[in-house]
Amino acid sequence: MNYLEALSNDLEIRRSRLQQAMQAMNIEACVLTTVVNVFYMTGKVYNGYFYLPAEGKPVHFVKRPEGIDFENTIYVRKPEQITEELQNLGFAHPKTLLLETDVIPYGECTRLLGTFGIAEAANASVLMRRLRSVKTDFELEQVRLCARRHEAVYKLIPSLYRKGMTDMELQIEIEKVMRQHGSLGLFRSYGENMDIYMGSLLVGENAEVPSPFDFALGGAGTTPIIPLGASGQKIKDGQTIMVDMAGNYTPWMTDMTRVFSAGKTLDIAYDAHQVSIDIHNHIMDIAKPGVSCAELYNISMEMVKKHNLEPYFMGTKQQAKFVGHGVGLEINEPPVLTPRSKEILEPNIVFALEPKFVIPEVGAVGIENTYLITGDGIEKLTILEENIVEL
Amino acid sequence: MNYLEALSNDLEIRRSRLQQAMQAMNIEACVLTTVVNVFYMTGKVYNGYFYLPAEGKPVHFVKRPEGIDFENTIYVRKPEQITEELQNLGFAHPKTLLLETDVIPYGECTRLLGTFGIAEAANASVLMRRLRSVKTDFELEQVRLCARRHEAVYKLIPSLYRKGMTDMELQIEIEKVMRQHGSLGLFRSYGENMDIYMGSLLVGENAEVPSPFDFALGGAGTTPIIPLGASGQKIKDGQTIMVDMAGNYTPWMTDMTRVFSAGKTLDIAYDAHQVSIDIHNHIMDIAKPGVSCAELYNISMEMVKKHNLEPYFMGTKQQAKFVGHGVGLEINEPPVLTPRSKEILEPNIVFALEPKFVIPEVGAVGIENTYLITGDGIEKLTILEENIVEL
Repeated sequence: MNYLEALSNDLEIRRSRLQQAMQAMNIEACVLTTVVNVFYMTGKVYNGYFYLPAEGKPVHFVKRPEGIDFENTIYVRKPEQITEELQNLGFAHPKTLLLETDVIPYGECTRLLGTFGIAEAANASVLMRRLRSVKTDFELEQVRLCARRHEAVYKLIPSLYRKGMTDMELQIEIEKVMRQHGSLGLFRSYGENMDIYMGSLLVGENAEVPSPFDFALGGAGTTPIIPLGASGQKIKDGQTIMVDMAGNYTPWMTDMTRVFSAGKTLDIAYDAHQVSIDIHNHIMDIAKPGVSCAELYNISMEMVKKHNLEPYFMGTKQQAKFVGHGVGLEINEPPVLTPRSKEILEPNIVFALEPKFVIPEVGAVGIENTYLITGDGIEKLTILEENIVEL
Repeated sequence: MNYLEALSNDLEIRRSRLQQAMQAMNIEACVLTTVVNVFYMTGKVYNGYFYLPAEGKPVHFVKRPEGIDFENTIYVRKPEQITEELQNLGFAHPKTLLLETDVIPYGECTRLLGTFGIAEAANASVLMRRLRSVKTDFELEQVRLCARRHEAVYKLIPSLYRKGMTDMELQIEIEKVMRQHGSLGLFRSYGENMDIYMGSLLVGENAEVPSPFDFALGGAGTTPIIPLGASGQKIKDGQTIMVDMAGNYTPWMTDMTRVFSAGKTLDIAYDAHQVSIDIHNHIMDIAKPGVSCAELYNISMEMVKKHNLEPYFMGTKQQAKFVGHGVGLEINEPPVLTPRSKEILEPNIVFALEPKFVIPEVGAVGIENTYLITGDGIEKLTILEENIVEL
């Protein structure tokens, strides 16, 4: 089976899962318009509206680009044309509707609701994120390909480092190698206020700086308009360099963090790093379908407390309240590994685990890997030296 | 006056302009929450809600990060706390409200409306974009600094080119030099469906490929999830290389396009490129406060028609219906230069003019510059060789 046949089969699977969910929810139709969900359902990106009834084939209402040739493609200028065109096609007018209410702007959403004469929509954002959290075989192949490239780039990091560099200089070298290995550039995240460029590299005390964005760690950044990540400071002897650069080599991402050090660093940094590795190993022992995401968080936290590392866990001045998250077309997908998560692991969930510590003045330590929940356990997808690598 | 004093004075000016507009609209309060508008009003980015009454001082409702220390900073976990806290501070409960209804998600916006017990908000997205289109002196200084770096990077392009390169290989070299010159990485645009990474480089027939995104030209891209820009094809003799890479060296951007060629190219390409330069020169002669943006479009179009270049103007298979746009914290600000634009030039508007042509098989030609409308005319901000540079 070639790539296009495999994609086409996979799109059928995705569509049928969405339609089953719609039928279970008693929803008659779904309209998707964000890049990520249109791509997920069609394999392409168009500016317009993907319309899916609870049974039967979709209709593609396209504004741009010219040349989209799916079955049932209708070019429109405005959303008001959708209902008329649906009538022309012989579709029943839906009385219930799913819209991406957590993402599409208020103005656009109320306009769509007005078009359909519906007062309130069901939440397609939540549903699509839940569906997308369980990957198909086609998606997993893309994730694995992404992981291989992610690993290949990280292997080159020691060769990119030169004594006396700033954190930003090192990051720029890594960015270039990423692009040469096929990094797509964009780093897609879900939600407002999640600005990031190609990932984060944190050195020394900059790892302590709180960020407005909802990532595991912060950093000051080099400009007040993107307060995150590398700050332009020289890398000093004894500091750690935490590399959490994007695994965006295919549309489906991987997430991986490794730590390097400029010369030797402090014992507490090595110790905390080992606790992070131990948490990973412990979770590899117990994670499988049926285990709750809250349990993964709580087990991590117990190990952290046992080693008295709580003041350094997931930051110092501001501490993130999760240790992991789903990964896919966006870097922050469900499930989220928090103390009160209601989510349960199931086969084909892909998630990143990132128990990290910030050691004042030294920097951040701890690793992050992307994992796949299998039929009866867990598989590590990002395979690479996990100890701190001295540069 | 040092930078921080200048910034502080400038923030006063911006705030006072917003409050004047609110008073003119009879709106009692404004809540801003998007990165760009929070930054514009405060000089920082926080995750939370910037609350401004029509008269008096703002209140900063902050979720993250820790450590924001503006006067009237209140930490909150959820928007429902805003109204209670306002009451504690002795603020009157507003009966009319501006919200960024064209940007913030439906779910979040209805939650904010519910919090304030208001049925419908006035549109802060449109208002803020209009206010931001007229730059302050502080902003103009940033724009000029950005232009100098933009020019410096473009000057290096001939030294980055090697015969036999792909378009993507050349783009990656340019990206690295951009970052080394302080490019912030992120390329901010307004609206859904405007995905782009660090700008666009178009070579040969790829310039004809329509894109779903609303930029002047398209390109296939290298992945179906970002269908825009360089496609990974080798640069062939006789083809043009249109470089429209981001001018994101300060939070306030510049936009500039220049064209290079692999060896000599066709006469029609040189001719069309000259028409683009002529359009720029003609518009420099007539643009000033009071001139309508529609007129700038129509004059450009007349010159295009006079040279029978209409089939190539702003694309072939899909033609953009604008020749320019405002530039600032986002790359696509008002005014937009379209045939039916109602917008009128006024002092301190910064806009990019980009009359471009796509010549089948050869590639794209034409230049783009960023201009400032002055008290009585226009000033070119991006100064660099405008002819096609042979590589």
